[in-house]
Amino acid sequence: MKKNNSGKLKIIPLGGLEQIGMNITAFEYEDSIVVVDCGLAFPEDDMLGIDLVIPDVTYLKENYDKIKGFVITHGHEDHIGALPYILKEINVPIYATKLTIGLIENKLKEHNLLRTTKRKTIKHGQSINLGCFRIEFIKTNHSIADASALAIYSPAGVVVHTGDFKVDYTPVFGDAIDLQRFAEIGKKGVLALMCDSTNAERKGFTMSERTVGKTFDNLFAEHKNTRIIIATFASNVDRVQQIINSAYKYGRKVVVEGRSMVNVISTAAELGYLDIPENTLIDIDMMKNYPDEQMVLITTGSQGESMAALSRMATNIHKKVSIKPGDTIIFSSNPIPGNEKAVSKVINELSAKGADVIFQDVHVSGHACQEEIKLIYSLVKPQYAIPVHGEYRHLKAQAGLAESLGIPKENIFIMSSGDVMELNAESAEITGKVHTGAILVDGLGVGDVGNIVLRDRQHLAEDGIMIVVLTLERYTNQLLAGPDIVSRGFVYVRESEDLMGQAKSVVEDAIDSCLDRRISDWGKMKAAIKDSLGEFLWKRTKRKPMILPIIMEA
Amino acid sequence: MKKNNSGKLKIIPLGGLEQIGMNITAFEYEDSIVVVDCGLAFPEDDMLGIDLVIPDVTYLKENYDKIKGFVITHGHEDHIGALPYILKEINVPIYATKLTIGLIENKLKEHNLLRTTKRKTIKHGQSINLGCFRIEFIKTNHSIADASALAIYSPAGVVVHTGDFKVDYTPVFGDAIDLQRFAEIGKKGVLALMCDSTNAERKGFTMSERTVGKTFDNLFAEHKNTRIIIATFASNVDRVQQIINSAYKYGRKVVVEGRSMVNVISTAAELGYLDIPENTLIDIDMMKNYPDEQMVLITTGSQGESMAALSRMATNIHKKVSIKPGDTIIFSSNPIPGNEKAVSKVINELSAKGADVIFQDVHVSGHACQEEIKLIYSLVKPQYAIPVHGEYRHLKAQAGLAESLGIPKENIFIMSSGDVMELNAESAEITGKVHTGAILVDGLGVGDVGNIVLRDRQHLAEDGIMIVVLTLERYTNQLLAGPDIVSRGFVYVRESEDLMGQAKSVVEDAIDSCLDRRISDWGKMKAAIKDSLGEFLWKRTKRKPMILPIIMEA
Repeated sequence: MKKNNSGKLKIIPLGGLEQIGMNITAFEYEDSIVVVDCGLAFPEDDMLGIDLVIPDVTYLKENYDKIKGFVITHGHEDHIGALPYILKEINVPIYATKLTIGLIENKLKEHNLLRTTKRKTIKHGQSINLGCFRIEFIKTNHSIADASALAIYSPAGVVVHTGDFKVDYTPVFGDAIDLQRFAEIGKKGVLALMCDSTNAERKGFTMSERTVGKTFDNLFAEHKNTRIIIATFASNVDRVQQIINSAYKYGRKVVVEGRSMVNVISTAAELGYLDIPENTLIDIDMMKNYPDEQMVLITTGSQGESMAALSRMATNIHKKVSIKPGDTIIFSSNPIPGNEKAVSKVINELSAKGADVIFQDVHVSGHACQEEIKLIYSLVKPQYAIPVHGEYRHLKAQAGLAESLGIPKENIFIMSSGDVMELNAESAEITGKVHTGAILVDGLGVGDVGNIVLRDRQHLAEDGIMIVVLTLERYTNQLLAGPDIVSRGFVYVRESEDLMGQAKSVVEDAIDSCLDRRISDWGKMKAAIKDSLGEFLWKRTKRKPMILPIIMEA
Repeated sequence: MKKNNSGKLKIIPLGGLEQIGMNITAFEYEDSIVVVDCGLAFPEDDMLGIDLVIPDVTYLKENYDKIKGFVITHGHEDHIGALPYILKEINVPIYATKLTIGLIENKLKEHNLLRTTKRKTIKHGQSINLGCFRIEFIKTNHSIADASALAIYSPAGVVVHTGDFKVDYTPVFGDAIDLQRFAEIGKKGVLALMCDSTNAERKGFTMSERTVGKTFDNLFAEHKNTRIIIATFASNVDRVQQIINSAYKYGRKVVVEGRSMVNVISTAAELGYLDIPENTLIDIDMMKNYPDEQMVLITTGSQGESMAALSRMATNIHKKVSIKPGDTIIFSSNPIPGNEKAVSKVINELSAKGADVIFQDVHVSGHACQEEIKLIYSLVKPQYAIPVHGEYRHLKAQAGLAESLGIPKENIFIMSSGDVMELNAESAEITGKVHTGAILVDGLGVGDVGNIVLRDRQHLAEDGIMIVVLTLERYTNQLLAGPDIVSRGFVYVRESEDLMGQAKSVVEDAIDSCLDRRISDWGKMKAAIKDSLGEFLWKRTKRKPMILPIIMEA
């Protein structure tokens, strides 16, 4: 693996959509490809009815024989969630740290892929050889345990990819980020740094996870006489650990509620990432045996998700827990952008039930703020900067930071999905574009809902549908039945009989006029119905329902 | 108007929905009703296709003869927006300050109500007699000029209603809030205080509007060589004034863009609330005559509204302005809860076009924070506290502040829509409930979209529709035509011919089975089709489109 100055490394982000962060990036050198992360995205507001979104990996399928494996930085959905879908098409080994592998295995089990998928657990500090690449896993801190940065050694030079990270000098579990190793690699010379941009607009330094533990202790001390319910992210194992610590200290039993919370906690406990004192965790059905002031519930729903446990408790549809006046409810989370209103709704509902809701300053971010980003740049001292993870505005904010640290503007690259960057010590440039995209998953359907279907759903959502059915006699084209008009989502029919009656005459006139003019082409008849009915409805209601004429033949 | 201790004042919030703040409150004493504000709300996420929401004022219609007038605190949509709709049913005079009346008149013009609506301009410090009430308008500060608090004098005692307010000692236009008058009224004895809760969760004091002017000056000094585009709330006349001031100071011309911005600014200028130096405001078509560094655009779209001017500039569909690399774009606003993602989307689009986007610390709130709320309580010293304006969480936060200031818990009331509170110096209690509700406006339709239609739109949005049509012969019930299946928003048909083919056989089997069993009841046939097709589709796709069987007779 000696440096070959003529060869170039290719870096290709394959995430598909610009805004919503499916993290997946191909590193390619000659006949070797390594894929870093394989995440899913949650649907945007205009993706009506869609469950989740995965990347279109056409480029990987076309280069299947080059792919040496998936290297995964940590176990969040936007880094591992697409694996079960993509593995069905690209079955290569997965490399990740222990907890990450554990969480991936949960997914493989669900999709029945456990037997057919190779996977290898890597320790921090360890390297693996994949084709002409060597990948070193470097310890970092994040809002999930076992997160890694990657040093990607290629014949063209070393790329350091931070993954999602923060600098936590006093982490709850395990070691602090391995800053020495970042420095050491930096000292030897780094071609490019790909650094987390999520918090690049925020000044200062992200607080240690441990500070939240102190907050819990204070809150437990202040609320000794009430039940405590804490909502947080299921995957934040350290947060759960600290809640358990406070609970134990204040003599409370802990109940865990919400499917994803139960899953993650059992995996984390099994693998040794959670230390639960004996007799602390109890089953939800045992709650009734303990007085309120001896209970803590840890639950999902911190983002106001309508089907999550906390939301169900707030609206009285949870089977086992209902909110009582006096309950202390703690949101140990911040709303993810887009969820603010849903979270507020749940807070209102809980407050209205008489609960005391605490939602300020019981959370720290898992991502590096500006000073941490500057620290990593200063240790790694890369030749090129490629900000990653975050919306365009965040990437641009990091680009500004990089520039302020003396990296020449022309050496800073904000890449778009599908961009092919070719780089070595001599030069770096975007040299091409590969096909990428977002594949929508709806129920069992992967990719069968496209733009036309989404546009129809949007149209239906906005103004509903008006269906016009009629039956014509074969050959003679005489009207045998109808026209009948049925509407859904347009206007409540009983309140608008007059409107619907008039609509029917408008359609009848249109049909008569077609038949009079001996227009028998169904396409033309349908267009005439659409036009006349659409115009009538717009004039009368200023609405444009989807109009769907259906002609049958008997 | 001497105090009559046996009589009770009724306070009835009529806003309809709890969360979304249509402000309208009835004050009733014997045969007199005065209505404070008459606002609209913008639709919640689940109100698909709805344009706006107005209150159901059945209670007012039932008590029409008692109503003496609408008293309006300020000119924001959530305080005046429903007037044109409600006036069509309840035509009583409107009382408000000059700018507020001006903005209301714009609406009356649009709805052709100018001739038939009585309105009277009131000055701060002035009182009006309405039945057995006297209403005094008190100067306050807010994010729109000419905002008023109201002292509502009734035989049962005085209620002080703050409206939306903040304390601005150094306002841009006109006087500071009349704290002396609050104190004077308080000194004489106030029955109840109804105080703005919007910022009751925020510590400290809201900064003066004037601080934003200094920020503009700094930003103009820093960006001397680029075009400047500033997005803000159309109704914030003082903000616009300060932009104009900075523009004038730095030798720039000002263009105003966006319909609501143009409307408000022309009304405000006409009425003397804006001081525009000559030759500063130019028409958008004149922009081409000036170099970029001599231009400022003030535009709508600060909330990421997809049809607003700034969003159209960001996506290149604005007819007259397109964003260029180097443009300085300032968001002089914070996202209103629920708009965060839309705003972020626009920021990303603008950044990606190479604009320099500034969105931090170029805005101050128009609402009082905790210290200001405490100040008003301390001046007014009410017997009862009734927090108003804000979500439940905010009302509750103010209730906590009131309690911390020594108001007994049993004298603090968080009212729900329709609650009837009866109070005088002896007692205060919720004694009943009147009908309230939200009336949805969609296009020209007021109230014709109800829950059934919304539920249908939701269903259609989620999974689309599958329509099954067939024609039966009258009397014999023989199948003459069909069944034909047409789907919209479910799955793109060309990609799923197999699925649709199988769906058709499922339906045919269901029909055959009905006809074989001589089931001729159309309801039963439709149910059989729905059941069998629904089950088939769920099994195959895990989706539940709306299934709509239509049977015709020939």
